[in-house]
Amino acid sequence: MFAESSPSPSPSPAAANAAFADRLARLAVQAGLAGVDVVIIAPGADLQYFAGHSVGSHERLTALVVPAVGEPQILVPTLERPGWSGSPLEQLGVPFTTWTDGADPYQALIGLLPLTATVLAVDYHMPAVHALGIQAAQQGSELRLAGEIIGELRMRKAADEVAALADIGAAIDRVQARIGEWLRPGRTEAEVAADIAAALVEEGHTRADFVIVASGSNGASPHHEASPKVIEPGDPVVIDIGGPSPAGYYSDCTRTYQVAGDGGDPDFDKVYEIVRQAQQAGVDAVRTGATAESIDKASRSVIEEAGYGEYFITRTGHGIGLEVHEHPYMVSGNAMLLEEGMAFSVEPGIYLTGRFGVRIEDIVVVGRDGPLLMNNAAKTLITVGG
Amino acid sequence: MFAESSPSPSPSPAAANAAFADRLARLAVQAGLAGVDVVIIAPGADLQYFAGHSVGSHERLTALVVPAVGEPQILVPTLERPGWSGSPLEQLGVPFTTWTDGADPYQALIGLLPLTATVLAVDYHMPAVHALGIQAAQQGSELRLAGEIIGELRMRKAADEVAALADIGAAIDRVQARIGEWLRPGRTEAEVAADIAAALVEEGHTRADFVIVASGSNGASPHHEASPKVIEPGDPVVIDIGGPSPAGYYSDCTRTYQVAGDGGDPDFDKVYEIVRQAQQAGVDAVRTGATAESIDKASRSVIEEAGYGEYFITRTGHGIGLEVHEHPYMVSGNAMLLEEGMAFSVEPGIYLTGRFGVRIEDIVVVGRDGPLLMNNAAKTLITVGG
Repeated sequence: MFAESSPSPSPSPAAANAAFADRLARLAVQAGLAGVDVVIIAPGADLQYFAGHSVGSHERLTALVVPAVGEPQILVPTLERPGWSGSPLEQLGVPFTTWTDGADPYQALIGLLPLTATVLAVDYHMPAVHALGIQAAQQGSELRLAGEIIGELRMRKAADEVAALADIGAAIDRVQARIGEWLRPGRTEAEVAADIAAALVEEGHTRADFVIVASGSNGASPHHEASPKVIEPGDPVVIDIGGPSPAGYYSDCTRTYQVAGDGGDPDFDKVYEIVRQAQQAGVDAVRTGATAESIDKASRSVIEEAGYGEYFITRTGHGIGLEVHEHPYMVSGNAMLLEEGMAFSVEPGIYLTGRFGVRIEDIVVVGRDGPLLMNNAAKTLITVGG
Repeated sequence: MFAESSPSPSPSPAAANAAFADRLARLAVQAGLAGVDVVIIAPGADLQYFAGHSVGSHERLTALVVPAVGEPQILVPTLERPGWSGSPLEQLGVPFTTWTDGADPYQALIGLLPLTATVLAVDYHMPAVHALGIQAAQQGSELRLAGEIIGELRMRKAADEVAALADIGAAIDRVQARIGEWLRPGRTEAEVAADIAAALVEEGHTRADFVIVASGSNGASPHHEASPKVIEPGDPVVIDIGGPSPAGYYSDCTRTYQVAGDGGDPDFDKVYEIVRQAQQAGVDAVRTGATAESIDKASRSVIEEAGYGEYFITRTGHGIGLEVHEHPYMVSGNAMLLEEGMAFSVEPGIYLTGRFGVRIEDIVVVGRDGPLLMNNAAKTLITVGG
């Protein structure tokens, strides 16, 4: 959870603290614009973003309180208070209130809200037990989601956040470049995945968050992870891997490989090339002012025109940052306009049940003059294990 | 997340499926008794308990729907449907409905609710985005928490669940018995914690969920984990460790050790003995019909009578099972009567800021004739690293 004496994640605490103060101030402004009296944030990526620190158990309420008018405060369980020692919030002088086991944390929280607060907004991930507990304690209040308010800030990455995504993107590229060390016929998907997971940590991730090794027909399930299935000669293999950096920013990169040998599907090369072109079309469409759904359409059109539209069963991409999936989503119906600093995946695929799958994925940031690629691993078809 | 081809977690699928059918039927009964029309459960320990399987990403809605009257159904994202292949729910014939990226999952869910459903209850951990999304989609409905309804079932462990807790309890005992291999002066807490984490997996956990190594004054913070602090001769060291078994049941065991050498606190031995007696008193108070708060009181009285009451800053225990913290809680104010099969920690402690801490923790199950200990590591004071 938290090591009290661990170093600050930022090299410049003073600058970092100023950044957190700025984020808190902008959150208050967004809340006011949305007609929300107070935003309440539980532990998770949102708390990490606004407080520079997130710690807390599931069932004990920890809550950052950010009113539209007034100063932020935070409620923490007494026994977790030491874990906030030296944190940015403490350095910024944000008042801490504690509550002790046996007390009612929701009443304690209500004491921190503005007296006139009637519209409360909670972060997307707050467990229902806390969200409804807060609502019940503040009689007559209206409970809303703060996700869009928060997303307005988190979606637009600052320069240091883009740098963090580029750093961890380079780390996952190094792992993809090493796939040939581990992927060969006769090994199981699970064995290959274990080696890849270790390499993620070696190359700079704090942990492997997901390691998909989907060979042969397993590749037709987009969220297959890794199984005892033995990898066969000629198998197409989808490798979709990622994890967080020490600062909390995620990598996420997919490549599809071919294992050397006979036994492959006769259509694999053709399908691979369609997905490669679809992925490139999605990346090429990235620019300020384009809609999120236009990225999906750019990739999808290539696959539809090749006659495989019904086999592209996912959206084209998801935002990424302190969470591996966050706003904005590249999906039909999302007319949001892309702005500089937005970061997301472009990952079309073709999934042929009972046969194989192909997916290629890069993380892209919207730059002033077009797409900035956070991944640069080769996208030509690579044969391994020969 | 999920490996399609991984073996079933249960040795007897037919018996396991019957158990899940029974749990679902009892949940419907509990819902009816509570005046709830339908219980809605998102991925997590609750879904694992009722469906024998839990898979799902944060932002895509997966929801098990259990009406008080009628048959259960489940909604899953199209791309995650293959992950449910062969699962107990599928074997039981529970209907699956899928929704595809771009569609509104809340409208899809509403289609699965009884037409007359007005009182909806969601699991404790359901993210607010889904809970409020469901509420908004079902106009005029009342949203409640299903936590108590679900807790009524999950709190009372069946024989196979007690066996699972005993198995993983024995695994963590083996790790505690090996602490002398790693804990010695001159090493950092973090180094010791890394060795312990590896041993948790060696001894049968799927992963280390938490590894607290709190030496010297760090022990005075109950939730300190592990830091770069070097362990000194004479340091008291709190070691609080646990993780899940392959079937998903958690271990959780704390022992406090003394590192060999001079430099210890002159009161350590006395405080250790008070905590040891307090923990034993808590365990001895466990029996059917006792209140949850009486376990807290039994431990707390020993510490209060010794003059250290103000330094015991936590509750005495928490339930455990498919979550490391769940109902019931051994805390002042909880008048719930203990019943056979309830499983929880007994973990009093004394926390002396700036000096040291002592905590001793076992998992206990309420047996017909008194407490059943899931942990049996020695509780006499052990000196290591000499």
